[in-house]
Amino acid sequence: MYEKRKGLFQAMTNVTNKLKIEYPIFQAPMAGVTTPKLVSAVSNARGLGNIGAGYLSAAETRGFIKEVKQLTKQPFGINLFVPEHHSVSQDEMRKSRQLLEFCLDDLHLNEINQPSTEPSTDFDQQLEVVIEQGVRVCSFTFGIPSEKVIKKLQHNGVFVIGTATNVKEAHRIEQAGMDAVVVQGSEAGGHRGTFLDNESYIGLMSLIPQVVDHTSIPVIGAGGIMDGRGVRASLCLGAQAVQLGTAFLTTKESGAHPLHKESVLGATEEDVQITRVFSGKSARGINNKFMTTMKIHEDDLPAYPYQNSLTKEIRREAAKQQNKDYMSLWSGQSPRLSKDISVDELMDEIVQAYQSMTK
Amino acid sequence: MYEKRKGLFQAMTNVTNKLKIEYPIFQAPMAGVTTPKLVSAVSNARGLGNIGAGYLSAAETRGFIKEVKQLTKQPFGINLFVPEHHSVSQDEMRKSRQLLEFCLDDLHLNEINQPSTEPSTDFDQQLEVVIEQGVRVCSFTFGIPSEKVIKKLQHNGVFVIGTATNVKEAHRIEQAGMDAVVVQGSEAGGHRGTFLDNESYIGLMSLIPQVVDHTSIPVIGAGGIMDGRGVRASLCLGAQAVQLGTAFLTTKESGAHPLHKESVLGATEEDVQITRVFSGKSARGINNKFMTTMKIHEDDLPAYPYQNSLTKEIRREAAKQQNKDYMSLWSGQSPRLSKDISVDELMDEIVQAYQSMTK
Repeated sequence: MYEKRKGLFQAMTNVTNKLKIEYPIFQAPMAGVTTPKLVSAVSNARGLGNIGAGYLSAAETRGFIKEVKQLTKQPFGINLFVPEHHSVSQDEMRKSRQLLEFCLDDLHLNEINQPSTEPSTDFDQQLEVVIEQGVRVCSFTFGIPSEKVIKKLQHNGVFVIGTATNVKEAHRIEQAGMDAVVVQGSEAGGHRGTFLDNESYIGLMSLIPQVVDHTSIPVIGAGGIMDGRGVRASLCLGAQAVQLGTAFLTTKESGAHPLHKESVLGATEEDVQITRVFSGKSARGINNKFMTTMKIHEDDLPAYPYQNSLTKEIRREAAKQQNKDYMSLWSGQSPRLSKDISVDELMDEIVQAYQSMTK
Repeated sequence: MYEKRKGLFQAMTNVTNKLKIEYPIFQAPMAGVTTPKLVSAVSNARGLGNIGAGYLSAAETRGFIKEVKQLTKQPFGINLFVPEHHSVSQDEMRKSRQLLEFCLDDLHLNEINQPSTEPSTDFDQQLEVVIEQGVRVCSFTFGIPSEKVIKKLQHNGVFVIGTATNVKEAHRIEQAGMDAVVVQGSEAGGHRGTFLDNESYIGLMSLIPQVVDHTSIPVIGAGGIMDGRGVRASLCLGAQAVQLGTAFLTTKESGAHPLHKESVLGATEEDVQITRVFSGKSARGINNKFMTTMKIHEDDLPAYPYQNSLTKEIRREAAKQQNKDYMSLWSGQSPRLSKDISVDELMDEIVQAYQSMTK
């Protein structure tokens, strides 16, 4: 299908030129949802597929990249989570475990496992893998890596992208020497990328132009964008590319659980709420029993990644048992625009719709 | 200046054709901020000026309309608040009065006046004035008027507009037979227009296309739009017109308090928060001492319009004493894009920027 649309709205921004992609459309690196099939399908359709490697070990990261390479010769990217340092006491962990006991019966579990209070991360080794494997684009969420890391990646030909939710964060990303910034509007599904001060929920209509006016690096708009209309609107606002998560989550190639896809396809914009009960970090997902029940404890839970470790088994078991009451059903605010469709069909619809608006 | 830009991007949507305006740009009917000068300046610049009549008596409404008519021969609109019926006890009012006592010293007041527990509204008489004065456009906030009211206005040649914050509300407005719907994104400044169930904070990037796909009446986008980029983006998303509040609030012709204008001009997107402490209804404004101090009581305050009556004197005195700690400094999420400018200059910049994007 790519051959049919070849040449339509191509190489229009610095970002597409720099990354050697045809369309300024990134698939969001949804950790736990991206598969080699999804990432390669987006890149083969001449957008930018992105591996969500936040929860992977270095070995898994290497394996994932190798699989993608076998499926596409086009550029693709990878996203890493910058490690965060919070402390938690055994007592806090124990209290939070107790709060989770209401799930045991429904999921036929005996107890909530006590995870380590010192979550490990392969961040440094993942960075080595990114360089070793020659990945062209590396984005970061939940913070800014050290100047040394950024310089080393760039020295090895990697295009480095940060994630911001307000102008101040975008400014820090620019100052750190990164090449571009993804601005995450309040509409976005999944985890909030805020890393300075309090949560920022700025709608994309406000966020893109304010960041564009106050930074000089390319801006990539994310949050609520689902089709050609959103792509064009974001570029009108000054973005040089867009990043779509929920739109790709429901594609055939996505690794999202079938119940997750089904929930998004059937949801309305009002079903989608912000919660921190799954991971200890605010994220947007479709309201369910777990979110509703845990809401009253929301302010008492340990920070990410501790709460995330505590609920891991619950989420895994719920997925296995086809029980969406306890799954994290991440979604942006535009679920009514989601489609049960292939990546190539989605890209085709976006490009055709975009093109028809320029006439 | 209008003569210079005449003919640029004119009469492009059903809404502009129907309303006989040249640009699909509405000035939001900010109650307490709009003046005959502001409304007429926008209409003379060939957008749609709108009177914010929510807090006016029928006599004041008539006087306002007459003044606008003397300043412009172009169409303009008016906005009314649909009366809400909440109950409040004397005890609740007394408790809330006590919570407000912390303001007394700073404002050199002796006591907080006890307002009526039965706020009156001139809604029915205002409707008569709208018809009597031949106003062409009437929009409503905080609900839907009766079918009889809608039909009567339409029978008298009035174009009737509702305000929605999600698809369900937009659908109700369509079902009620209204002619168009303003969709208020989460970015918007001032009071939230939600009238069904809980507060809805849907970003405009998500809200416009979802409402467009699920209703058949024209959609007018509002929230965070400040310049040609936002106008064009909203039209790309499917809106037939846009409504700008904060952008007009800081114009020379606006009736906003000088300190209010100054605060918006100096604010960042992060300074703007949702609060219900001023009126009992959620609204977006620039954080100040009153908001910070009252935040802990936010869930215990009487509903709108009772809390609004209780804080009225505080806000009035603060304005008189040039003390912005106690004023309601409404603003949308894009204050960094605000300008100290005349209406005609603003309209000119929007039209020129819009036009340059079509080339």
